[in-house]
Amino acid sequence: MVTTLFVDLMSQPCRALAIFVKMNAMPCNIQTVALRKGENKTPEFLSMNPLGKVPVLKDEEFCLTESIAILRYLDTKYGSSCLYPKSIRARAKVDEFLEWQHTNTRMFAAKVFLGEVLFPGAINIEQAVNDMNAMLDSVESMFLKDKNFIAGETVSVADHFAVCELLQTTISGRDLFKDRPKLQSWLDRVRKDSNPHFDDVHSVLYSVRRRYIKNKL
Amino acid sequence: MVTTLFVDLMSQPCRALAIFVKMNAMPCNIQTVALRKGENKTPEFLSMNPLGKVPVLKDEEFCLTESIAILRYLDTKYGSSCLYPKSIRARAKVDEFLEWQHTNTRMFAAKVFLGEVLFPGAINIEQAVNDMNAMLDSVESMFLKDKNFIAGETVSVADHFAVCELLQTTISGRDLFKDRPKLQSWLDRVRKDSNPHFDDVHSVLYSVRRRYIKNKL
Repeated sequence: MVTTLFVDLMSQPCRALAIFVKMNAMPCNIQTVALRKGENKTPEFLSMNPLGKVPVLKDEEFCLTESIAILRYLDTKYGSSCLYPKSIRARAKVDEFLEWQHTNTRMFAAKVFLGEVLFPGAINIEQAVNDMNAMLDSVESMFLKDKNFIAGETVSVADHFAVCELLQTTISGRDLFKDRPKLQSWLDRVRKDSNPHFDDVHSVLYSVRRRYIKNKL
Repeated sequence: MVTTLFVDLMSQPCRALAIFVKMNAMPCNIQTVALRKGENKTPEFLSMNPLGKVPVLKDEEFCLTESIAILRYLDTKYGSSCLYPKSIRARAKVDEFLEWQHTNTRMFAAKVFLGEVLFPGAINIEQAVNDMNAMLDSVESMFLKDKNFIAGETVSVADHFAVCELLQTTISGRDLFKDRPKLQSWLDRVRKDSNPHFDDVHSVLYSVRRRYIKNKL
């Protein structure tokens, strides 16, 4: 029996996880849960995750939340041929970023997106953008530094968890890559190395972004 | 050659990691870096971690930051006989909490501690305590629910990462366990199952707490 991964592809960690599953051709169903329609609030969904959040993994009666925990479970169960290295030190450098991102790329980029798109007026955008820029400085100087990807010379889940988060802010028309050529060329490399899955998983975001920008004009 | 784990035992994740190393009798030196003396700002320390944060693991020339990434590295390198289960589903439930805690137990308990002890006046304490209480409700209803420990019937690193964070708030004299008998009996179980290492690692915190409360009286 295959496992099922419940996602909404408008959620950043869901996209990163979906790319991981697709690029590794894992025997895992990807089932969409539309947050905007409240499909995450049904009794059936809440029985899997009382917090009503995505992603959720279901493997027979076993339910698991938290994207990074799901990533490791899938890796242990099915093995991964790419994106999550096997050697102890290479994997540790991917893990280092995956733990760092919760309170950095995830927290600060999401805040800008929430303040600009979902809850305009509820967040001090100037402060949020300053915090995000400090975070982007760290990504460039500490993680990318003189490497092609966050955790070394090949693309990994660390890059996808970061890129999915940063791209979320572009829905409002914001281009955080504009004055950051190092970040832009990294984004181009990640996308190129992960296509067609990368664009496939991001198609919903691209479409929402087009609509959002058109309506603003 | 043994690895060295650099910690300040006044840091919550450092304590959880130190308990893990000690309870598993890992061949890993634990070396103290006193943050209050700025020992994390020396060129030598910054060459290991440019952010100047603890913990840091050094294994020959290999340096690793982020407590959860370090935990996994040590587990892979030395194996753990306790606190981090080997079976795929039991480990996944521990991982689920370790990923959740970053923006929950860690973020909300630390905010109360920072606002009450380190930077009084800089944080809205009433709001911070409300947020912490909502988080404690989740710990009780979702993770502990009807189990003895966060990820099952035996103590794990998930419990230590949680307890170390919650105990930090008691330095100010605050007793967040007072009206929460379920949380209190869980704390007692974690401590009992992990002693003498638990109290050994917390001795600095206990001593600071005694001084802090005495000076307030």
